[in-house]
Amino acid sequence: MDENTKLFEELLLLLENREFRQLREALTELNKADAAEFLETLPEKQMLIVFRTLHKETAADVFSYLSPELQEKLITTITDREASAIIDELAVDDAVDALDELPANVVQRLLRYTSPETRQTINQFLNYPEFSAGSIMTSEFVHLKKEMTVQQAFERIRKVGLDSETVYTCYVTDANRRIEGVVTVRALFLASLETKIEEIMDKEVIYAHTSDNQEEAAQIISKYDFLSLPVVDQEDRLVGIITVDDIIDVIQEENTEDFEKMAAMRPSQTTYLKTSVLEMARNRVPWLLVLMVSATFTGGILSNFEHAISLMPILVTFIPMLMDTGGNSGAQSSTMIIRGLALGEVANKDLPRILWKEVRVSLCTGACLIIVNYARLLIIGSNNIAVNMTISIALLVTVTVANSLGGLLPVLAKNLKVDPAIMASPMITTIVDACALAVYFNLARVLLGL
Amino acid sequence: MDENTKLFEELLLLLENREFRQLREALTELNKADAAEFLETLPEKQMLIVFRTLHKETAADVFSYLSPELQEKLITTITDREASAIIDELAVDDAVDALDELPANVVQRLLRYTSPETRQTINQFLNYPEFSAGSIMTSEFVHLKKEMTVQQAFERIRKVGLDSETVYTCYVTDANRRIEGVVTVRALFLASLETKIEEIMDKEVIYAHTSDNQEEAAQIISKYDFLSLPVVDQEDRLVGIITVDDIIDVIQEENTEDFEKMAAMRPSQTTYLKTSVLEMARNRVPWLLVLMVSATFTGGILSNFEHAISLMPILVTFIPMLMDTGGNSGAQSSTMIIRGLALGEVANKDLPRILWKEVRVSLCTGACLIIVNYARLLIIGSNNIAVNMTISIALLVTVTVANSLGGLLPVLAKNLKVDPAIMASPMITTIVDACALAVYFNLARVLLGL
Repeated sequence: MDENTKLFEELLLLLENREFRQLREALTELNKADAAEFLETLPEKQMLIVFRTLHKETAADVFSYLSPELQEKLITTITDREASAIIDELAVDDAVDALDELPANVVQRLLRYTSPETRQTINQFLNYPEFSAGSIMTSEFVHLKKEMTVQQAFERIRKVGLDSETVYTCYVTDANRRIEGVVTVRALFLASLETKIEEIMDKEVIYAHTSDNQEEAAQIISKYDFLSLPVVDQEDRLVGIITVDDIIDVIQEENTEDFEKMAAMRPSQTTYLKTSVLEMARNRVPWLLVLMVSATFTGGILSNFEHAISLMPILVTFIPMLMDTGGNSGAQSSTMIIRGLALGEVANKDLPRILWKEVRVSLCTGACLIIVNYARLLIIGSNNIAVNMTISIALLVTVTVANSLGGLLPVLAKNLKVDPAIMASPMITTIVDACALAVYFNLARVLLGL
Repeated sequence: MDENTKLFEELLLLLENREFRQLREALTELNKADAAEFLETLPEKQMLIVFRTLHKETAADVFSYLSPELQEKLITTITDREASAIIDELAVDDAVDALDELPANVVQRLLRYTSPETRQTINQFLNYPEFSAGSIMTSEFVHLKKEMTVQQAFERIRKVGLDSETVYTCYVTDANRRIEGVVTVRALFLASLETKIEEIMDKEVIYAHTSDNQEEAAQIISKYDFLSLPVVDQEDRLVGIITVDDIIDVIQEENTEDFEKMAAMRPSQTTYLKTSVLEMARNRVPWLLVLMVSATFTGGILSNFEHAISLMPILVTFIPMLMDTGGNSGAQSSTMIIRGLALGEVANKDLPRILWKEVRVSLCTGACLIIVNYARLLIIGSNNIAVNMTISIALLVTVTVANSLGGLLPVLAKNLKVDPAIMASPMITTIVDACALAVYFNLARVLLGL
């Protein structure tokens, strides 16, 4: 990071002194991810100047590392001809990512000057649904035929290697483009040059469908430690591959989305600092409103006990403790289950085991909480045994209800095809609050005779 | 999943009929990740029988895909000689992972029959601190010298390829094992066979230190789309590489840890279903206790207003709504900041921008909430303007305090070298509750003259 700061200052100096040739040299030498990072730090006008000084291939490489916002800004600012040239140079998946958010007529205008082949592939790829395996794949990979020898395979890799996303896993297809096998470059190295591909290829090919969710593709790559995963269309023809670097982005995106949903937000499309205030408010308000109105029911329960409260206002002072402990317990159990579901570690069929486990955990944690809380009550001078018992029992019931709901609701959501992350602490807290206070005040009414 | 279920049933049938030869054949054919999954489904005794029927190399491959619990069980059940044979076959990073949790004397006993070289490397690797780049690297990679030709490089890859984690990125070192350059197999393919490595290697090598956190290594690989990352020791000598498949595991682990910390739990080492009830209670109780005792302060604030409460018990019915909305707002803002910090999207220096943004978001969301809430109050027949104003102002203040704390505390934690995830909703809820209720009842006292 510090090294980059120093480097960026030098680059900035070159820019200020208008030494464009040296700047171009420096940026061409630089790792493309770092060059993109440098462009991100510049004001729009200067960014555009620097981008235009780059060689065509460098420009496309750097472009693929820019943030979606900057990509959109660039592609709509430069001339259509310039944009087309960059799109032609980009890997198909990167081009599709860049064009995905633009209006259809702009996309068609930009594609006008690209090669017919690029245009056709991009149009096809833009049609895959968002978050599908098809939407993140690339069509640039190495095809082999099973009749080829290792020698011929190497020649083919040399020929198409520059334009392929990866050359390290090659796919063997038949005349109908159906996938017949997969062979790694490592296997090619270990075989003699005359060996037929058919003899060394792995025939048990694991693949995804274009319509599969990108999360499934990520789970496959992560399970089998693949560098790339083939994707087939409805007719089982090989149409693309997904590479591991794109899967890392998918994993991070899906995790961010889960974090946001679990905090009762609609997922954001951009990073924190780049999201506008209004956009942010729009993402946050819906759930806040739903949960606020739901909390009315809890208030309604309390209003049934106004008489008890006015007789014994001290009961009110334990409300925050009960509500917070219930909310925290619910967050703990629901988080574990939501995460377990996302990683495929727990499934629907485990529901009885989950509930049984949560009840036992509740008894353990509840016992600890009651003991510490009782000591605390004695310390602050609360000597009324009936009050103390009411609080203790309410605490145990609250923890048990919270943990059970935390275990149950995410699994239930998954069954109803709702994202389990929606059933996280905010949702559960609202339900647990109502239960906790109902139990607490009903106990108080009975035990204290209010 | 369904395909595997069917397959597993067939394998089980072979096992029941004691057709071990066929079972071995079938498992050798199967993808190693799937074979490991099959073993995980078996009871201990049968698992051991099946594992012993496997060929030595298959056994090691399958072993590396087993869960840490099963690895530990296996390695302590089979004879030391058998265990040593497997350790010898394993990649160093997998062997280290398997041995990491065992007592030192058991490790030494198991290493007795391994080759002296393996023993030395494993002992060295076991000394790297947990979660460091050193602890997840492997020593099996392809070294090249810059004087070599491409032809010689290919020969070397063919020779050591079988024992290397990856052959696709090769590292060029000098006589003192210092790293001088990096060259991909793709670059080798695109060059002529007589070219010297020196001419095509990339001299700007990006690397990690053994003592770096594994999270930093993950960020580098994810930023630059690397398939592997070289790791150097304190004397800048190349000692290992980290491969992208291990980085995917690191990313998932770190995310799970953040989810757990944000839900006020100590991170667990195993999956949900494999964690014992007591272990789970131990992970959950500490924070529940801390937060429960903290909630005492909120109760203390309420006890100052017992007089007001007994005069006007209806005020109590709005406590859950205020507390929940505060908690939810705090969860929203803190989650965005914690995630932004983890992904490197926001940094310390952004604190003023964060706070300014959160205040503006608070005004937007607060305004929406007040309007809906006011309508709700009128509908449920709360016509006392002073009461309604008290609730509305308290609501706005609560949301603003919650969002500001959600923006501030995680950044502060990072500054104090505390994990920002600790400052998530449970912590913030507790603080916000106290503020919200203090503001609410003080306002009530002034506006309602209680």
